[in-house]
Amino acid sequence: MDELLITSPANPRLKALAALRRRRVREAEGRTLIEGFEELDLALGAGVVPRVVFYCPDLMADPDAQARVVHDVAGRGAKVVRLGRAAFEKVAYREGPDGFLAVVDTVTRNISDLEVPDDALVLLCEHVEKPGNLGAMLRTADAAGVHAVIAADPVTDWGNPNLVRASKGTVFSVPVVSDSTGAALSYLAARGIALVAATPDTDVEYTDIDYTGPVALAVGAEKTGLSDQVLHAATHRVRIPMVGQANSLNVSTSAAIITYEAVRQRRAR
Amino acid sequence: MDELLITSPANPRLKALAALRRRRVREAEGRTLIEGFEELDLALGAGVVPRVVFYCPDLMADPDAQARVVHDVAGRGAKVVRLGRAAFEKVAYREGPDGFLAVVDTVTRNISDLEVPDDALVLLCEHVEKPGNLGAMLRTADAAGVHAVIAADPVTDWGNPNLVRASKGTVFSVPVVSDSTGAALSYLAARGIALVAATPDTDVEYTDIDYTGPVALAVGAEKTGLSDQVLHAATHRVRIPMVGQANSLNVSTSAAIITYEAVRQRRAR
Repeated sequence: MDELLITSPANPRLKALAALRRRRVREAEGRTLIEGFEELDLALGAGVVPRVVFYCPDLMADPDAQARVVHDVAGRGAKVVRLGRAAFEKVAYREGPDGFLAVVDTVTRNISDLEVPDDALVLLCEHVEKPGNLGAMLRTADAAGVHAVIAADPVTDWGNPNLVRASKGTVFSVPVVSDSTGAALSYLAARGIALVAATPDTDVEYTDIDYTGPVALAVGAEKTGLSDQVLHAATHRVRIPMVGQANSLNVSTSAAIITYEAVRQRRAR
Repeated sequence: MDELLITSPANPRLKALAALRRRRVREAEGRTLIEGFEELDLALGAGVVPRVVFYCPDLMADPDAQARVVHDVAGRGAKVVRLGRAAFEKVAYREGPDGFLAVVDTVTRNISDLEVPDDALVLLCEHVEKPGNLGAMLRTADAAGVHAVIAADPVTDWGNPNLVRASKGTVFSVPVVSDSTGAALSYLAARGIALVAATPDTDVEYTDIDYTGPVALAVGAEKTGLSDQVLHAATHRVRIPMVGQANSLNVSTSAAIITYEAVRQRRAR
């Protein structure tokens, strides 16, 4: 296998790699980073072929088995670069790096390219700010068999490395879309997909409605919730009953509770 | 109000304050930190009287209204210390500090001191490692009206500042307990509280069982799940159906899905 070795933390290739932590650079280049063996393995399982894989045997938990993965990736056409420990630690962005960092094409899809089945179950996240929350929602979407996750007027991009990490690589297995709220609502309306909007400002509980038809579940920004545009377009507005002192559940927790209620109803059909 | 002003970041009181970020110091002193106005406000709402409140008017979003909170806290017996901006930023542990940091007594309770109602709904978290996950579960517990959260053989302590922060202060409103797994299981058994253990290794789905009686929901460590000790003691072992590629839902997401299924059944009674 054709392999490059970099040991100096000052190598200019590493600077270019670190630059991908910035959204502007990711969007200009259409590339992003995957860090971690488990995350890379999930992306590979979803059919992703990385542009480049950087690895550091000194940091690997299981060097023999993991070197086979590197070899396999090279066989699929990825460039492979081995890094010395100091060089790898320079570009790693998480604590306790495990010796894997890959450059992949960003998942970019407009809603017009999205295809969903007749009984679609879709998650719509509007203005969600924290990459960790979007990542957690992707894990839930993956587990629940959600057909697509739509980021409407997103504040972060699907290529954000913290999102990729928090998603455990599911950003590469679940169909994801970024588009305006208006385009998302038009898409759903044109296909007869009901829109269920989560909001505290309603008396209808999320367990009171039927999710067995084609449906999109909408959750909004951490602090401000859904926009009026989504609330007005909603087929149903629903709330999760809360009895405690704190303002609200985390947005990804709310999304999981409603998504799994839909799953429960669909499995009971 | 009797007030002290510190402007030098080198002041020794600030060093003692920063030392509370270490678990050993927290446990030795029986104190922990609350950072942030919203978190402090929740703790105050739960009846907590801080030992000391450190505040920095320069960093406050709403200095007039928030100064009233400081005054109110002082009236309840807390010592109040005003910090200059440089001094506050020295002790703040989160990005974008909002000018509030308080020292409070740690929530310490053994399971023998716990009282729950006859229809108890309890969350048991065994070996959960990440403060963020325990904090998220406390928010869910608060929202769902869970009667107690038990950390069994905990890896982190309830006083961990990241846990306090992730919990949005609900660690002070939801009854929390730390004890051994054995003591927790004995407690539940002695009171006839059923134990429902979440595990992938069962065919019983979490929606298949009845949660309307007294019940404890158990979730385990992020990577390894529940111990054999809990699995063997369980009245029911249940799984959350998952169809995706990734290994599992986040532990706090799993806890939320099962907890809200219990809430759904109890509200439908």
